Amino acid sequence: MKKIGIVMGSDSDLPIVRKAMDTLNEFGVPFEVHVYSAHRTPAEAKEFAATAREKGFGAIIAAAGMAAHLAGAIAANTTLPVIGIPVSSKYFGGMDALLSTVQMPSGMPVATVAVDGAANAALLAIQILAVTDDTLAKKLEEKRRVGAQTVLEKNQKIEEEFNR
Amino acid sequence: MKKIGIVMGSDSDLPIVRKAMDTLNEFGVPFEVHVYSAHRTPAEAKEFAATAREKGFGAIIAAAGMAAHLAGAIAANTTLPVIGIPVSSKYFGGMDALLSTVQMPSGMPVATVAVDGAANAALLAIQILAVTDDTLAKKLEEKRRVGAQTVLEKNQKIEEEFNR
Amino acid sequence: MKKIGIVMGSDSDLPIVRKAMDTLNEFGVPFEVHVYSAHRTPAEAKEFAATAREKGFGAIIAAAGMAAHLAGAIAANTTLPVIGIPVSSKYFGGMDALLSTVQMPSGMPVATVAVDGAANAALLAIQILAVTDDTLAKKLEEKRRVGAQTVLEKNQKIEEEFNR
Amino acid sequence: MKKIGIVMGSDSDLPIVRKAMDTLNEFGVPFEVHVYSAHRTPAEAKEFAATAREKGFGAIIAAAGMAAHLAGAIAANTTLPVIGIPVSSKYFGGMDALLSTVQMPSGMPVATVAVDGAANAALLAIQILAVTDDTLAKKLEEKRRVGAQTVLEKNQKIEEEFNR
Amino acid sequence: MKKIGIVMGSDSDLPIVRKAMDTLNEFGVPFEVHVYSAHRTPAEAKEFAATAREKGFGAIIAAAGMAAHLAGAIAANTTLPVIGIPVSSKYFGGMDALLSTVQMPSGMPVATVAVDGAANAALLAIQILAVTDDTLAKKLEEKRRVGAQTVLEKNQKIEEEFNR
Amino acid sequence: MKKIGIVMGSDSDLPIVRKAMDTLNEFGVPFEVHVYSAHRTPAEAKEFAATAREKGFGAIIAAAGMAAHLAGAIAANTTLPVIGIPVSSKYFGGMDALLSTVQMPSGMPVATVAVDGAANAALLAIQILAVTDDTLAKKLEEKRRVGAQTVLEKNQKIEEEFNR
Amino acid sequence: MKKIGIVMGSDSDLPIVRKAMDTLNEFGVPFEVHVYSAHRTPAEAKEFAATAREKGFGAIIAAAGMAAHLAGAIAANTTLPVIGIPVSSKYFGGMDALLSTVQMPSGMPVATVAVDGAANAALLAIQILAVTDDTLAKKLEEKRRVGAQTVLEKNQKIEEEFNR
Amino acid sequence: MKKIGIVMGSDSDLPIVRKAMDTLNEFGVPFEVHVYSAHRTPAEAKEFAATAREKGFGAIIAAAGMAAHLAGAIAANTTLPVIGIPVSSKYFGGMDALLSTVQMPSGMPVATVAVDGAANAALLAIQILAVTDDTLAKKLEEKRRVGAQTVLEKNQKIEEEFNR
Repeated sequence: MKKIGIVMGSDSDLPIVRKAMDTLNEFGVPFEVHVYSAHRTPAEAKEFAATAREKGFGAIIAAAGMAAHLAGAIAANTTLPVIGIPVSSKYFGGMDALLSTVQMPSGMPVATVAVDGAANAALLAIQILAVTDDTLAKKLEEKRRVGAQTVLEKNQKIEEEFNR
Repeated sequence: MKKIGIVMGSDSDLPIVRKAMDTLNEFGVPFEVHVYSAHRTPAEAKEFAATAREKGFGAIIAAAGMAAHLAGAIAANTTLPVIGIPVSSKYFGGMDALLSTVQMPSGMPVATVAVDGAANAALLAIQILAVTDDTLAKKLEEKRRVGAQTVLEKNQKIEEEFNR
Repeated sequence: MKKIGIVMGSDSDLPIVRKAMDTLNEFGVPFEVHVYSAHRTPAEAKEFAATAREKGFGAIIAAAGMAAHLAGAIAANTTLPVIGIPVSSKYFGGMDALLSTVQMPSGMPVATVAVDGAANAALLAIQILAVTDDTLAKKLEEKRRVGAQTVLEKNQKIEEEFNR
Repeated sequence: MKKIGIVMGSDSDLPIVRKAMDTLNEFGVPFEVHVYSAHRTPAEAKEFAATAREKGFGAIIAAAGMAAHLAGAIAANTTLPVIGIPVSSKYFGGMDALLSTVQMPSGMPVATVAVDGAANAALLAIQILAVTDDTLAKKLEEKRRVGAQTVLEKNQKIEEEFNR
Repeated sequence: MKKIGIVMGSDSDLPIVRKAMDTLNEFGVPFEVHVYSAHRTPAEAKEFAATAREKGFGAIIAAAGMAAHLAGAIAANTTLPVIGIPVSSKYFGGMDALLSTVQMPSGMPVATVAVDGAANAALLAIQILAVTDDTLAKKLEEKRRVGAQTVLEKNQKIEEEFNR
Repeated sequence: MKKIGIVMGSDSDLPIVRKAMDTLNEFGVPFEVHVYSAHRTPAEAKEFAATAREKGFGAIIAAAGMAAHLAGAIAANTTLPVIGIPVSSKYFGGMDALLSTVQMPSGMPVATVAVDGAANAALLAIQILAVTDDTLAKKLEEKRRVGAQTVLEKNQKIEEEFNR
Repeated sequence: MKKIGIVMGSDSDLPIVRKAMDTLNEFGVPFEVHVYSAHRTPAEAKEFAATAREKGFGAIIAAAGMAAHLAGAIAANTTLPVIGIPVSSKYFGGMDALLSTVQMPSGMPVATVAVDGAANAALLAIQILAVTDDTLAKKLEEKRRVGAQTVLEKNQKIEEEFNR
Repeated sequence: MKKIGIVMGSDSDLPIVRKAMDTLNEFGVPFEVHVYSAHRTPAEAKEFAATAREKGFGAIIAAAGMAAHLAGAIAANTTLPVIGIPVSSKYFGGMDALLSTVQMPSGMPVATVAVDGAANAALLAIQILAVTDDTLAKKLEEKRRVGAQTVLEKNQKIEEEFNR
């Protein structure tokens, strides 16, 4: 199976990124995590991106905040799908990171998920692998089923409490 | 090769969506286009999403404006990767469509691209297929090379005009 | 009397939604509460909306946050009045939920109230029933009178404290 | 049948408001239009609101731009459902009118629709009357059916043009 | 001397409004405080505004949050200068109240100060009285002088601590 | 009668500022207009502000766009009431000028009106003079009466056209 | 004299960037212009930045729009002062480019000027050279003097037209 | 070596500004700190700016919040490079200060850094001095090297913890 690369711009993004790792682990999808800064270690970020396909990666998740250039910098050096997680800071609720991640110029898409949406970033990566992996696709369907079941159980509990 | 599904919420989105079709044609990637509204034809939107994997689709691109629910409604009914194009309207420059598309709850990712970013949506879809398709991957690399070349030529022209 | 349906996208919206229940209880208006997610349990959400009129509902209140599609998804499946409560999250103060709820396309109105404005959502539902229910209309007038009285009493207290 | 009141803050709002009139005419719902300013003719606005229920109105639509107080001023003087249309101006795309209309304090709901969303305001008013008017409810269902049909026809045309 | 009227939309605005009272007390300017809601007690708000000039008021300060209509409602009923304090809430940092207060239509100015800027509202009211009151004008100059002195002292302290 | 000072940051603001001059002329209120830039001619701006009271000015209107510092710079050098007009530019609809004008620190109020709201700025200046000038106050009342009359006539015209 | 480097992300930025060239020409400051894209030609952008100091550059101006990563990518590869021009697009008035340019992480400053503020970017570059170049400093002072003179002349013209 | 001037609008900005002092100290760059308010002590602010070049300053850092005019007021009185730090307040996450600082009119650049970005302001000042100071330039390179090293070490730690 292809691996998923996870890159964060700073180790302070780890609490967010961990949700992506948990989700990948839950699906048994192999991944590698790295701290590469688009600005402090651009060469390492570039090297990682440029060699990711040949090293067996199927998608790269990049998490960064503020003027969040990391996902774009990764995308500039690979044609693998790059998934961007805008990380919120205290100033604009993550609007700076969101716009810096999603408003990419033509030719360089970054698949952007919600602010701090690391679990969804991982799910998107898994969905990408599942395009040609029926076992993963089945696991995704199963997780959906369980997710729906959880909502229905919560619904039942609330119905029992409030609807006479 | 897997097909790409393109769904627009209204036929008024066609001028935007056409850039996605052009890009897919350029890469020789088969696609189907549909007009399905999350609100006016929810059953058709759902049916399309729910059967897309078995019908040979590899990813679905959804374009919608304002309270842009279409990408999310598609995502709720398939585990294929769903790519959302927030379409701008005259009111908030597309901020309403961007937030409605990208801020998806946990479990339901939408791979969001820039406002009106249809060419990038198509490229992202192609990147997803290229994870396991080396020919497509090579074409993507080639397009990157050509894109870089174009920039370098423009650079040369501007250098010649302005740098004595 | 017609019933009011209350749907929340997640049971984490309960603290907000409870203010709607309290208000409906205060007016003796029957209601049913459900947890239906536009994305995780779209079939249940649709079924509830599609059968609401025949089951004796007069209006449906839908509360959701982030890319808040729930009110729109309900509205797409009923012609009953649908009242949307944008629920705030920590990121944009509820601006994402507000725009996702209010900016509905032509043909599919959602009667949107203030961010986290669950009491007003319930009052609006009661006002809708009161269009043809004079007893309810009188109760609404009475609540207005009491609300005004409360302001006047607070005014008197502050006048006595600060105006010599 | 109850009448719908339409109030605009300025006759410059007429091009927007006309879409509401067209929709009401389409459904054969009687209405009255007025130009009352929350600030220039507050007495007339208040008088209209305060007597609307007894005069046979079932809901009031209020359209205003900038610091759009009209819907709130109407709502303060009636317990009928008040539907607010935030009218856009050139400055903030209608964000000022949207926030001034939707962020009402507890006790005074305004059912807010999209910026410039006059057709939806009328549909919401009709939905309110239709809660106890089966003929109107059927017309709403029929309009939905036609709306869906229109989307399906556009879909077919686009499918024929683009899907080989 | 003319009095200053202070009106707050809710007694929860008192902690903000108190800074205005303190400033007026500091200058020995008489004032009256009231809690009048633009929506819950519109008649009282109107009555206060309509009779304010004859009762010897020189300016009216109005503080309100969210869809802050109070200052506008006061302004609609008097030709005295009306000073608006947008009160912040937790949702948009007071942006809703700011836009609802400042974006008044032509003919109805509201002199808007900063979000939660009650001390400045009082100073503005005093400046208005001081146009024809030399004693007040001198006090304002003196307060400016003291304010500058305070900054200079803080400057000196910081210079001594950090500039060797 | 006191004069009103009008200062614009650039002569490109003249089309906006002219509405203030027209209104002052309509009321027969004397005024002086100047182009002083907070940044290009700070000395002249300061000198004008610092001597305005002794020269017989009763209030100063300052119009500026972008990082609109002019009103604040005037306010820093006089204790006369300073009225700020945020002038819109093409970028943020005047939000930059609005925030730069209204968010003044404690001690330095600027009476801010709507973006491009020059007529209201003039009316506010007249209201300030009218605090102690009954003739002006009467003219203001008369203008209000005429304004209301105009709305009522427009109302009548629209009623006749649309209400059968 | 050190040279100024000007880099634009796309040749479509040329109309904006030209104002920077004009200003540099006006001061006789040598410069080089290039089109380097942070994403399409990252190697060239990097190479230019990394060798700029040894090639005799004193500052680099970078202009880019949308998710404007160019200034940051340049800054990551040089310790010369980097001046960022956020270029506006039709969507958010340049807010995306502004936040992407200015919100740089600690360690990597970008000296950001106003949206589309190319003339100011050039002036800032000249100011940087002028720190140790008295001739340039004198020219800057002279331009300031001329700028002030221009304002004063406009002032005189407007005074003569409007102040009797 | 030239000195760096640091001016803050209020001593409450000291916790932010201290990061600038720490960075300057780390590089052995001499500086002076002052508290000068653009509005409360405009004369002192002006005097400082106007004499800064002759007193041996090479750049001035100005930190202010809300309607942050300080950097602009300094820039209006010197042709030295002025670096603006927008200081956040609780209302708009610093957006008011950012726009007030960065959106300067043509002719008066302010080199704006991120909200609360005092360390970067100091680095930018050092970069400006380093244009003609090779020792400082080497220190900047060294700090970059160390910064990159720190990221790589964090990367290694995270790789060891998470990549099996």
